[in-house]
Amino acid sequence: MNATATRPAPAGSYAPLQNDTFIRACLRQATEHTPVWLMRQAGRYLPEYRATRARAGSFMGLATNTDYATEVTLQPLERYPLDAAILFSDILTVPDAMGLGLSFALGEGPKFAHPVRDEAAVAQLAVPDMDKLRYVFDAVTSIRHALNGRVPLIGFSGSPWTLACYMVEGAGSDDYRLVKTMLYNRPDLMHRMLQINADSVAAYLNAQIEAGAQAVMIFDSWGGVLADGAFQQFSLAYTARVLAQLKRSHDGVTIPRIVFTKGGGLWLQQMAGLDCEVLGLDWTVNLAQARSLVGHSKALQGNIDPNVLFANPTQITEQVRQVLDSFGAPHTGAGQGPTHIFNLGHGISQHTPPDHVAALVEAVHSHSRSLR
Amino acid sequence: MNATATRPAPAGSYAPLQNDTFIRACLRQATEHTPVWLMRQAGRYLPEYRATRARAGSFMGLATNTDYATEVTLQPLERYPLDAAILFSDILTVPDAMGLGLSFALGEGPKFAHPVRDEAAVAQLAVPDMDKLRYVFDAVTSIRHALNGRVPLIGFSGSPWTLACYMVEGAGSDDYRLVKTMLYNRPDLMHRMLQINADSVAAYLNAQIEAGAQAVMIFDSWGGVLADGAFQQFSLAYTARVLAQLKRSHDGVTIPRIVFTKGGGLWLQQMAGLDCEVLGLDWTVNLAQARSLVGHSKALQGNIDPNVLFANPTQITEQVRQVLDSFGAPHTGAGQGPTHIFNLGHGISQHTPPDHVAALVEAVHSHSRSLR
Repeated sequence: MNATATRPAPAGSYAPLQNDTFIRACLRQATEHTPVWLMRQAGRYLPEYRATRARAGSFMGLATNTDYATEVTLQPLERYPLDAAILFSDILTVPDAMGLGLSFALGEGPKFAHPVRDEAAVAQLAVPDMDKLRYVFDAVTSIRHALNGRVPLIGFSGSPWTLACYMVEGAGSDDYRLVKTMLYNRPDLMHRMLQINADSVAAYLNAQIEAGAQAVMIFDSWGGVLADGAFQQFSLAYTARVLAQLKRSHDGVTIPRIVFTKGGGLWLQQMAGLDCEVLGLDWTVNLAQARSLVGHSKALQGNIDPNVLFANPTQITEQVRQVLDSFGAPHTGAGQGPTHIFNLGHGISQHTPPDHVAALVEAVHSHSRSLR
Repeated sequence: MNATATRPAPAGSYAPLQNDTFIRACLRQATEHTPVWLMRQAGRYLPEYRATRARAGSFMGLATNTDYATEVTLQPLERYPLDAAILFSDILTVPDAMGLGLSFALGEGPKFAHPVRDEAAVAQLAVPDMDKLRYVFDAVTSIRHALNGRVPLIGFSGSPWTLACYMVEGAGSDDYRLVKTMLYNRPDLMHRMLQINADSVAAYLNAQIEAGAQAVMIFDSWGGVLADGAFQQFSLAYTARVLAQLKRSHDGVTIPRIVFTKGGGLWLQQMAGLDCEVLGLDWTVNLAQARSLVGHSKALQGNIDPNVLFANPTQITEQVRQVLDSFGAPHTGAGQGPTHIFNLGHGISQHTPPDHVAALVEAVHSHSRSLR
């Protein structure tokens, strides 16, 4: 899409990982501090991101250009001693590759030119040719090389249900009326769409792993809008279908898999049964309770309210301590035990003052060291 | 505000209650069917409501006029055999009476001309003169007379925290950035505002009870956006402060108190300690689990997804059955036991087909009878 894109060096010959804190915590192994990264850490709150985006001309111009995607992925690492990088991309790349026609109007959210709202539209859906997503895999390889082993690179995808929300609504929604109408009125169509989405997401994440992603995360951003019962049938079951198809390792190294359902705190006991290494939690969840429910089988990731970053650094430090303390004493010995990966409970706000992020990262590292 | 308003007959001489199913269920007494009413049951999905609103000229023209408020409150009862009526009003009447200047722009949500964003604005807040809310109490008395004992009348208020969200944001919000900035940055100001809100809400609900409300409900619509820990400090504690001040009975009759926190499912165990008779639940909560957590001390109200009403009547009936069945066998004997009040998990959508509501109410009554 952008003429400035260059082909990255081939995957497979990467520098050794210098900071493996995040990967170790994913695998429930002891670390010297609690690793921290932030959902949407490469984003609009950073002036350098806004400058690159202005050069790229548009959000998709940024996401589809290997050089730009690499540049913005590394920007937060230049400012903060974060313990992981996450691919800069969008969760809607997969339905775009299905032919739904993604666009981002200025000042608005994403839009699809061809939403999927009836039987005929569902019948036309198929797992997309992964070549249409080559720009994503190229970005993964390029970023992995550029990281040069500093920290691991996380790949990601939207969950089958979350993709279906956008595919049916055609844009963001505040009531999910159209997608839920299909769910309740024609569950057969919804199941068909979710099967295709799950198989697409699995192929997409496996290709990211082959391209160099060292962990993968499934964002079930809209799982929490479902009713009890519907969540298990229409979201959890298809997340499980993705996980069942994912590569467990690549080049002899384990690839941890993270599942994050925003608003999914009530279903943690059922999510504990997922075949993944880490569960992401939003800020409504009590970490001590979550640890007692699922901490024996999974690492936990989260969960400070992103709005804490609007308070002053003293209050930020205090809130970070409360979140770390609520998880409790981290595992320190040999073998596996309960581990925590610090993160926000949702993506960082574009209005966040960048120096407040520095205060948060510093507080996580220093206070978590003092707990060991 | 409207010249057509008439003074209602004085409170205190009402017809006896013919259908007390809702009140009995609130008090955990056996009933022949599961009572049902719908949050926002008097509203835009009804053509007769839209006609009255057009005559009133504006939303506040409707809410502040006793005759109009009475008319629209009774409209859904003419169509459906609902087991309760709820006062037609808005949760923002209290901050409006505090002088914040409420308005409803066409096609937008509510707006305050004078949002409360700094120490000086908080310092000026006080419990409003209840005479400024006389139009609400007059409407309660008028509706109670017009109901003539058909079904009980529910009064309501926003919770202290939910009012604070609007008072600080000045309008609806999708991230609650301003109110949470105050909460995290200046918890002292937030606590002061919440104390004033709690005392105002208590006075407001007590005046509704004196005017004729036979049950009262506190809508904590935005409690679920708070982090674990913050919810307990900034929402639950002030709901408890309201409850502690409420009249337990009026004219020798018990006045049941309902608390509904949207998105509060994770905190049910703590909400079970509230001094109220009923907890309202949204659709993310499993009723069997909720019953085992709190069903021994409280009646439960809820919790079908309002989007179910967009499915066809056959599917609506099936979903209603699933919700009723998930609560389990209702209490049938003498004394107190677990009881369920059927409702949506949130307000009804303006896009709902009115005949689908008929199917829902019919399904609740017939299936719940068959369970006894």
